Amino acid sequence: MIVIKIGGAAGIDPQPLLAELADLAKRGEPWILVHGGNEELSALQERLGTPPRFVRSPSGHESRITDAETIAAIQMSYRGRINNDLVLRLQRLGCDAVGLSGVDGGLWRAKQKPAIRIVQDGRQQILRGDRTGRIHTINTDLLRLLLGGGYHPVVTLPALSDEGEALNVDGDRAAAQIAAAMGARTLLVLSRVPGLLEDPDDPNTLVPVIARSGLAEDQRARGRFKKKLLAAQEALDGGVPEVRLGTTETETPIASLLAGNGTVIS
Amino acid sequence: MIVIKIGGAAGIDPQPLLAELADLAKRGEPWILVHGGNEELSALQERLGTPPRFVRSPSGHESRITDAETIAAIQMSYRGRINNDLVLRLQRLGCDAVGLSGVDGGLWRAKQKPAIRIVQDGRQQILRGDRTGRIHTINTDLLRLLLGGGYHPVVTLPALSDEGEALNVDGDRAAAQIAAAMGARTLLVLSRVPGLLEDPDDPNTLVPVIARSGLAEDQRARGRFKKKLLAAQEALDGGVPEVRLGTTETETPIASLLAGNGTVIS
Repeated sequence: MIVIKIGGAAGIDPQPLLAELADLAKRGEPWILVHGGNEELSALQERLGTPPRFVRSPSGHESRITDAETIAAIQMSYRGRINNDLVLRLQRLGCDAVGLSGVDGGLWRAKQKPAIRIVQDGRQQILRGDRTGRIHTINTDLLRLLLGGGYHPVVTLPALSDEGEALNVDGDRAAAQIAAAMGARTLLVLSRVPGLLEDPDDPNTLVPVIARSGLAEDQRARGRFKKKLLAAQEALDGGVPEVRLGTTETETPIASLLAGNGTVIS
Repeated sequence: MIVIKIGGAAGIDPQPLLAELADLAKRGEPWILVHGGNEELSALQERLGTPPRFVRSPSGHESRITDAETIAAIQMSYRGRINNDLVLRLQRLGCDAVGLSGVDGGLWRAKQKPAIRIVQDGRQQILRGDRTGRIHTINTDLLRLLLGGGYHPVVTLPALSDEGEALNVDGDRAAAQIAAAMGARTLLVLSRVPGLLEDPDDPNTLVPVIARSGLAEDQRARGRFKKKLLAAQEALDGGVPEVRLGTTETETPIASLLAGNGTVIS
């Protein structure tokens, strides 16, 4: 069992990855694909005349403000267009994929964050009512049911809150939680970047290995990679033997990553 | 097994129907919900700056032109927003629903129509390449797998073409095909209208019963109801004992319809 997360950055071509997934399926290796959609969500929000708004946490992490309009746009972009498009592409490759959101069958049960600490005009403030949360339970029964029936799950936002509302959650961490709950042998987290870079602007500064023991103190991650390392930590803590961070920008992203390219955390 | 189709007209409140479905689920009666989304699709197309276009068939039926942009909007509205919202509402009612499109698991395999006969400027013309089709195969295994696992399927557009593309199909006829393939005991087709009306503007002209033998020759249906009678015919031909056409606009739409309100076709 492999869990693969692909990000939602602009210009990612999922086709090489999907061809590898279709091939893995034919060879009987079970997998679960988790996908993002940030760029397309933002583009849709612009087109709908409700542009995205972002806030910054005290630790410097930028995150999207998620109100009811944003949830509707997440349903349209992540759950509607991108997920359905990935399932279509897999079907064309002869792979019987089924798209799921975290809402379906309560796949991702999450607790809404009561408040988010943000920095605005240089001062710390509290943002309440934001529709973001943290997953606490994965419905592994539903995933096993589909896998056992020969279907390949393609999973995305939103998650289901304890109050039955749709929530925005972090996709990398969601993938980590699925990998842990399903007992995956590896979690592959793919973006347009070759792995963790000491200098984000220099691909020659790739960090090939991070020992699990040093992960919490690793200061080299910036921006989105802070969340990726946190997700890796959660996957390892949940019993996943290894997490690999790598790029979609090759002919064989999964094979390359499994061959040792990218950053291995174990 | 009951199959229920609800339309996508403006102002339909699905909540009474969903409460009945949650109750049926608790009592162990399996069901499959099929839903439309025409009005919300059109509204989204307007918001995106690509307003819907319609054509008229020689028999007077109006249908939506479905190009690549329309498919994307169908994915966003039907598959994304409306489907996810119905699943959320059912989850809040304690009913473990799973949303599916016809693409997922090849649930609705369809053949793209090579050409559509339309009337334009008073003359018959042929429209090619429209992304509409007719379902030829229902993946009953996937539906049975989910129902057997205790999940309640909520199904919508798009369908999957034999070439692996997303297609627009008629929702009433799709529901009829599911009902036939699954051996449903009844198909309930709900809209804002109380049933087939002899005079569409007068609810007192409800046709309470149509005998199966007279269905093909029935000249009383206008507009959307022509498709509903065609769908009813297909369900009956496929072995469904009865089809009921009724309204969502009561406190108990399913119970009312099963009690004999609406139009019964058998």
